[in-house]
Amino acid sequence: MKSYRKELTFNIPSRRGFVNITPQVEEAIRESGIKEGLVLVNSMHITSSVFINDDESGLHRDYDQWLERLAPHEPVDQYRHNDTGEDNADAHMKRQVMGREVLVAITDGQLDFGTWEQIFYGEFDGRRKKRVLVKIIGE
Amino acid sequence: MKSYRKELTFNIPSRRGFVNITPQVEEAIRESGIKEGLVLVNSMHITSSVFINDDESGLHRDYDQWLERLAPHEPVDQYRHNDTGEDNADAHMKRQVMGREVLVAITDGQLDFGTWEQIFYGEFDGRRKKRVLVKIIGE
Amino acid sequence: MKSYRKELTFNIPSRRGFVNITPQVEEAIRESGIKEGLVLVNSMHITSSVFINDDESGLHRDYDQWLERLAPHEPVDQYRHNDTGEDNADAHMKRQVMGREVLVAITDGQLDFGTWEQIFYGEFDGRRKKRVLVKIIGE
Repeated sequence: MKSYRKELTFNIPSRRGFVNITPQVEEAIRESGIKEGLVLVNSMHITSSVFINDDESGLHRDYDQWLERLAPHEPVDQYRHNDTGEDNADAHMKRQVMGREVLVAITDGQLDFGTWEQIFYGEFDGRRKKRVLVKIIGE
Repeated sequence: MKSYRKELTFNIPSRRGFVNITPQVEEAIRESGIKEGLVLVNSMHITSSVFINDDESGLHRDYDQWLERLAPHEPVDQYRHNDTGEDNADAHMKRQVMGREVLVAITDGQLDFGTWEQIFYGEFDGRRKKRVLVKIIGE
Repeated sequence: MKSYRKELTFNIPSRRGFVNITPQVEEAIRESGIKEGLVLVNSMHITSSVFINDDESGLHRDYDQWLERLAPHEPVDQYRHNDTGEDNADAHMKRQVMGREVLVAITDGQLDFGTWEQIFYGEFDGRRKKRVLVKIIGE
């Protein structure tokens, strides 16, 4: 069994945003030399997500508005977490809806994907450096 | 390390529906010959889910109504994704709540499950052929 | 490839609660002797979650109130699942928002974690014994 580890870094200039990270994950798979196995891609932070969905800007606007409806940022004093001096309690909730991680099969050295699947980093408390872990195991 | 790959196909006759796919996953594990490892089961589409919960029809009706409350299908013009000609933006959201994938331990050649755990395919934009990937690694 | 399996048991004295189980997962990794691989941690029940987020009591109170708003426990007769004699339909929904499982990379014999990542058991229908599965594969 082989394993490979890589960190990706992001600094989203706004509070929230989505970035397609599929090319970086594909590059990590090539670097690993692993042909059959699994790739785990997870946020190393608790106010952001890694998820798989469609690379369509209208959908991303819908996600942003929907998540803001499910867990509004304002008023920040509605959340006890924000009593600690933070203002990001909503980001901890949005991240639970969208998920921390994805696990994707590697077959013949490629992401074993359906037609429209793409991997995204979802930021809910940006404007600082954040890390994503790519861990690959297989042969 | 051994690996095994299988695709399952579904064509749900309505927009939304839940199907217990545990027997098909168990069959794939038998076919793989893998006794110790992990099985990844994921939707290859971005408007459907694979999740683990209870095989109880009342609960499935509750899930359907609850998801429709969190992310209503109508009016379709509330979503920018639907400006592309689609009417399935709500399905992309319902799928995020229910999840894309499950990962289950294989122990002694069996799904290592609690008493009530069953694997479901959750469709939120049906009436066409959809695929689920089963990828098994282990020994 | 090596594999290791361990069950953790919990009996939360109230209906809902969160427990930091990171030390128990770290202990299982030490017991396994696995230095490079993956650890799957999942609830073996369908009314509880395993998730990764912050060990901050204010946030846990926010999660509890937020989940209660998304899927209220009362009135119990709003859910068809509760026609079976149960009163825990809401727990099946809360668990879907928070997730069944987490998968964490093991690097150099340690949980490969960001600064604030901690693993939690999330109970939504407690006051009885529940199990969590830890399955580790690697080398």
